Amino acid sequence: MSGSHSGRAGRLSAGLATAGPDDSALDGLLVTNLVNVEYLTGFTGTNGACLVTNDRRVFLTDFRYAERAAAIEGWEVEIVSGQWLDGLASRLQGRVGFEDDQVTVRTASQLREAAGTAELIEAGGQVERLRRVKDDEEISRIAAAAAMTDELYGLLMERGLAGQTEAEVDAWLTGWMRDQGAQPSFPPIVASGPNGASPHAEPGPREIGPGELVTIDMGVRLDGYCSDCTRTFATDSEADLDSLSREIYDVTLRANEAGLAAIRAGEIGSEVDEVARSVIREAGYGENFGHGLGHGVGLEIHEAPRLGPSSKDVLMSGEVVTDEPGIYIPGATGVRIEDMVLVGEEGVARNFCSIPKQLTFV
Amino acid sequence: MSGSHSGRAGRLSAGLATAGPDDSALDGLLVTNLVNVEYLTGFTGTNGACLVTNDRRVFLTDFRYAERAAAIEGWEVEIVSGQWLDGLASRLQGRVGFEDDQVTVRTASQLREAAGTAELIEAGGQVERLRRVKDDEEISRIAAAAAMTDELYGLLMERGLAGQTEAEVDAWLTGWMRDQGAQPSFPPIVASGPNGASPHAEPGPREIGPGELVTIDMGVRLDGYCSDCTRTFATDSEADLDSLSREIYDVTLRANEAGLAAIRAGEIGSEVDEVARSVIREAGYGENFGHGLGHGVGLEIHEAPRLGPSSKDVLMSGEVVTDEPGIYIPGATGVRIEDMVLVGEEGVARNFCSIPKQLTFV
Repeated sequence: MSGSHSGRAGRLSAGLATAGPDDSALDGLLVTNLVNVEYLTGFTGTNGACLVTNDRRVFLTDFRYAERAAAIEGWEVEIVSGQWLDGLASRLQGRVGFEDDQVTVRTASQLREAAGTAELIEAGGQVERLRRVKDDEEISRIAAAAAMTDELYGLLMERGLAGQTEAEVDAWLTGWMRDQGAQPSFPPIVASGPNGASPHAEPGPREIGPGELVTIDMGVRLDGYCSDCTRTFATDSEADLDSLSREIYDVTLRANEAGLAAIRAGEIGSEVDEVARSVIREAGYGENFGHGLGHGVGLEIHEAPRLGPSSKDVLMSGEVVTDEPGIYIPGATGVRIEDMVLVGEEGVARNFCSIPKQLTFV
Repeated sequence: MSGSHSGRAGRLSAGLATAGPDDSALDGLLVTNLVNVEYLTGFTGTNGACLVTNDRRVFLTDFRYAERAAAIEGWEVEIVSGQWLDGLASRLQGRVGFEDDQVTVRTASQLREAAGTAELIEAGGQVERLRRVKDDEEISRIAAAAAMTDELYGLLMERGLAGQTEAEVDAWLTGWMRDQGAQPSFPPIVASGPNGASPHAEPGPREIGPGELVTIDMGVRLDGYCSDCTRTFATDSEADLDSLSREIYDVTLRANEAGLAAIRAGEIGSEVDEVARSVIREAGYGENFGHGLGHGVGLEIHEAPRLGPSSKDVLMSGEVVTDEPGIYIPGATGVRIEDMVLVGEEGVARNFCSIPKQLTFV
């Protein structure tokens, strides 16, 4: 465990005073979401939990992970015989928060039985809140994942798209990531021609033709952290590309740039979304942008905060978010252009996606 | 949707009369575990739910999956704007079961708010129970996944192991699976020499040496269904292999065979486990077999029933289970030998793993 992990548990502990409902105090917090456990301890595995109180940090896992657990510094380690629940009964005291957005009804019932006189309080989202603002180590891991993605975009542009099926391009992208010791942070999207009209198209047997748009949405997970970048390319020749495709590309790019200009610490998620969305609406394509503008990226490909019409999240310096407007014309074509950026006090502090955004024929 | 999917929903509906706690009747069952949704409807995606009553079958998803949903026969399809919860409020009546082993505390609370006068009853495990016994179509998919795994074992044995790192073998195995249009049903285990002492070792940078044991545990997922097979090989030369490795191989193989002989419809999971475990215990290695004997395999790599010391599951004809005893000597070596078999009335009806089990030098 690095020093930064240790600081995270300390920040969680410091927040217990207001971690309960209506900012009430908790005596402890039980963390069972494995991504949150990884964030706090560096542990990866299928069975682990953390109990954080004002003065103790207990990590629970089973014998399979005894060796990995021993490498976690700053935590008392308890090896349980089965699930994390088994080691908890005697440790819960007072008002103990649990992740109600992650714990199932059945597990909560077992937990209440095991808790004795301790009171279990619904308190999900505490670690997710900490995870929003990235520390330097996290930012450098995200930057490394983004740089690898950009390198892959560069190779893709040299290699071209027309004449291959979407599935072939997908297999090549995924294979390259694995050869680099990374993995896809989500299954890549390769959506060509009319398939580009579906925001979540799965790569299929369609052969990519000349003079059409192809949306590529991909990222890698490297050292635990994700990247996310979308570009829409055109295939040669320029003479063949229809005017609708050109127009929606232009509008989407303007919306992307308006979004970038609006991202700044203190802004509200819904307001940033509206800045980009209004560009698309005013161009007459409001009905063709059916998803939110962006989302946080970190250990998970989608995490807090959200940029979307109903998001009340207030952006903070050090968050990493995407800016990904799109226009989707059913049966015809589609465009999405996505950057992943670091939020700063004065605006975007860093754009992790370095691939050019002007319409590019490959 | 095939005819077999339709039969599954019918069986679920027929079971409502006793699906509640203490065999009480339910008026409906809400199925939100996506594997169970896939089992009932054939739907794959990230947002889907089923509501089954005596006379209705409703499938809910969002606009992204409208096309896929339209292909599902025998179900009323409702396209909701967000999560499946949004479309349910008006549809819940009477005593409605939900999957309390899958639904989170927070979602259950939202569900209760949406339910109006309907009563929500904890009733997880109904579909899992149906999934235990496989129909002919499922058995043929599992057999196809197992045949592909066996083909890969054959190639592995030709290719050899010594001189490669565990991670290189893993990458080759995984790459081959993907080239066949399959994917690993779980990350392959390649555990050589002392690493074999860890039942869940992750393939690492260790170079596989001569005269040592290597445990390979792998399977593919093909057309939705999993396979699972473990073999422990020895690397040349035979003269170099130590006597401890030979002895625990021999004991583990006898335990595996005792387990196979004990598997039969009507037997109890704990009793089958004990038959194999007693072979290992009597040889003096009882403390070195720290996991259960086996588990069901199907849409998931681990599903009901369980074969283990505390399992009360009674085996049924048509179940597919593994038989995988192991002996793990910390710091030294380990062996696991796993078959995946079809349970029949008179004993094992079919062993899906055809790779020989005598100690093999590759």
